[in-house]
Amino acid sequence: MMRQAGRSLPEYREIRAGRSFMELVHDPKLSAEVTLQPIRRFGMDAAVIFCDILVPAEAMGRSVSIVEGTGPIVEPPVRTRDDVESLNDFVPERDTAFLAEAMGLVRAELGDERAMIGFCGAPFTLASYMVEGRSSRNYERTKGMMLGEPETFARLMERIVDNSIPYLELQAEASADALQIFDSWGGALDEATWRTFIFPHVARLVEAAKGTGKPVILYVNNGGHLLEAMADTGADVLSLDWRVTAKDAIARVGDRCAFQGNLDPTILFSTPAVVKREVRHVIDSFAGAAGHIYNMGSGILPTTPLENTTAHWEEVLRDVTPGASA
Amino acid sequence: MMRQAGRSLPEYREIRAGRSFMELVHDPKLSAEVTLQPIRRFGMDAAVIFCDILVPAEAMGRSVSIVEGTGPIVEPPVRTRDDVESLNDFVPERDTAFLAEAMGLVRAELGDERAMIGFCGAPFTLASYMVEGRSSRNYERTKGMMLGEPETFARLMERIVDNSIPYLELQAEASADALQIFDSWGGALDEATWRTFIFPHVARLVEAAKGTGKPVILYVNNGGHLLEAMADTGADVLSLDWRVTAKDAIARVGDRCAFQGNLDPTILFSTPAVVKREVRHVIDSFAGAAGHIYNMGSGILPTTPLENTTAHWEEVLRDVTPGASA
Repeated sequence: MMRQAGRSLPEYREIRAGRSFMELVHDPKLSAEVTLQPIRRFGMDAAVIFCDILVPAEAMGRSVSIVEGTGPIVEPPVRTRDDVESLNDFVPERDTAFLAEAMGLVRAELGDERAMIGFCGAPFTLASYMVEGRSSRNYERTKGMMLGEPETFARLMERIVDNSIPYLELQAEASADALQIFDSWGGALDEATWRTFIFPHVARLVEAAKGTGKPVILYVNNGGHLLEAMADTGADVLSLDWRVTAKDAIARVGDRCAFQGNLDPTILFSTPAVVKREVRHVIDSFAGAAGHIYNMGSGILPTTPLENTTAHWEEVLRDVTPGASA
Repeated sequence: MMRQAGRSLPEYREIRAGRSFMELVHDPKLSAEVTLQPIRRFGMDAAVIFCDILVPAEAMGRSVSIVEGTGPIVEPPVRTRDDVESLNDFVPERDTAFLAEAMGLVRAELGDERAMIGFCGAPFTLASYMVEGRSSRNYERTKGMMLGEPETFARLMERIVDNSIPYLELQAEASADALQIFDSWGGALDEATWRTFIFPHVARLVEAAKGTGKPVILYVNNGGHLLEAMADTGADVLSLDWRVTAKDAIARVGDRCAFQGNLDPTILFSTPAVVKREVRHVIDSFAGAAGHIYNMGSGILPTTPLENTTAHWEEVLRDVTPGASA
């Protein structure tokens, strides 16, 4: 269910009521609680820590708020070289201590038999939120900066990676078993552009993350055309959306990477029988892969009907002894 | 510039001021005028008629309004089998006469030396606007209906195609030189799902459109993973977005189809020099194709800087004698 694990659950909505999203993120007890909710209800063998990909943007000195129906707002936006230089370098142990504390609480309940996955946003995704100041369908200011002022763009990407590395290291020290890099928007770029302007920064981040000794998972939403480039970053696992078939991914990447994915989350708007059939299809389709972590191909949608979510996890976990595979 | 040709131009904004988008669509003189504006300014050898893909949804009895910053609103939404049956079959000569009239006015100014392209939305795109009632990031209601109530979904697709065929025939009779089918949202489906639930309807529409004797162009936004399926519909030309390379498209489709595309429209947010370099790169990249119509890979964005749009057309038309290639 990606990092949106709990957001479709009634027990999540209960905790969320009357609180802003970022309030939950900053409160270690609450974020540990919503991290654990889906594990308690469904019994999966791994938890993704509840956090927001924009936490580092906030720690770098921008105001971040998540507005219902609009998405994140980042103020002030980063548009010039001076804006880029005005960003802070943050100290994760001091400025994002809430995350380490939340991870400690989650670990205490998970024990050693279930895995905990830490994460950060990919540099292009963070850059696009910083440059646009909000969600965007086309990222025209970001791509305009990338092509029109490539040095400013590269410096922004560099500063994001400089800050993302110790942020992931903090999570590794806080007992994360794997580190995932989420690129929500990198799929908007063609492969040549991605290789030229994005790849060096992602590869540096992946390499540093691997330096912690933890496996690194790279997800690029809508990134089916980028699989070879993603594999070239050195990531251990490529997380796929539902538009990429296992067959195609295995043919193109071989055993260089394991795969994670990739059920279309909108399938959970059909019926329990269809959901179970499609889950089985996904699991079977990755039989020839070097490794497979079952997951959805994108975050679960908040309005997903609970009976279908339940059917989904019943089918996924049908052959799994809880705890045994962690 | 796709069917959004004029929308970044000051002369378009002048006509648009104080009028709703649908008001322009329904007024043959105004829609002919905004169709011709980019041709007069830049001198391209083909015009795309100004219209909206939701005109058939309106003629089928739904209220359509385009809300600034939100996109189209379709009321009431189509959610049940009864909703599907309640749709009208419309008579294009009577109910969309404004479009034929606009095309006549455009043809009178274009003469026979420049081409005019008619179009309609693809059935999945229309269905998703009808079912969701508005733009959507995930199309969960539409995909939920498709998988959970496949007969209702198929009936909706069938009724859309039933009505789209005479609508395209009207445009062919009104002197369109080619007919384009725009699938804005079909790329959200994986290939197997697209082949099962969408392909039969698109193939029927393509076949009927080819029955007019005009070449048929099929565009599926974000459809790089669907190229083979798109070619299988029998379309003469596949219109590509910028994430698909010419090399990959030619390798996968060969000479079964010509190609249209595929500059990333956000490149026009960089500088004139970068724009010209990237235009040249696109044109050169399709040198080995069975045929190539230069175009952007998606609609031009309304806030595109005029100097970059101008540089863009200078480069595109550098080696073209106006009128000679039509």
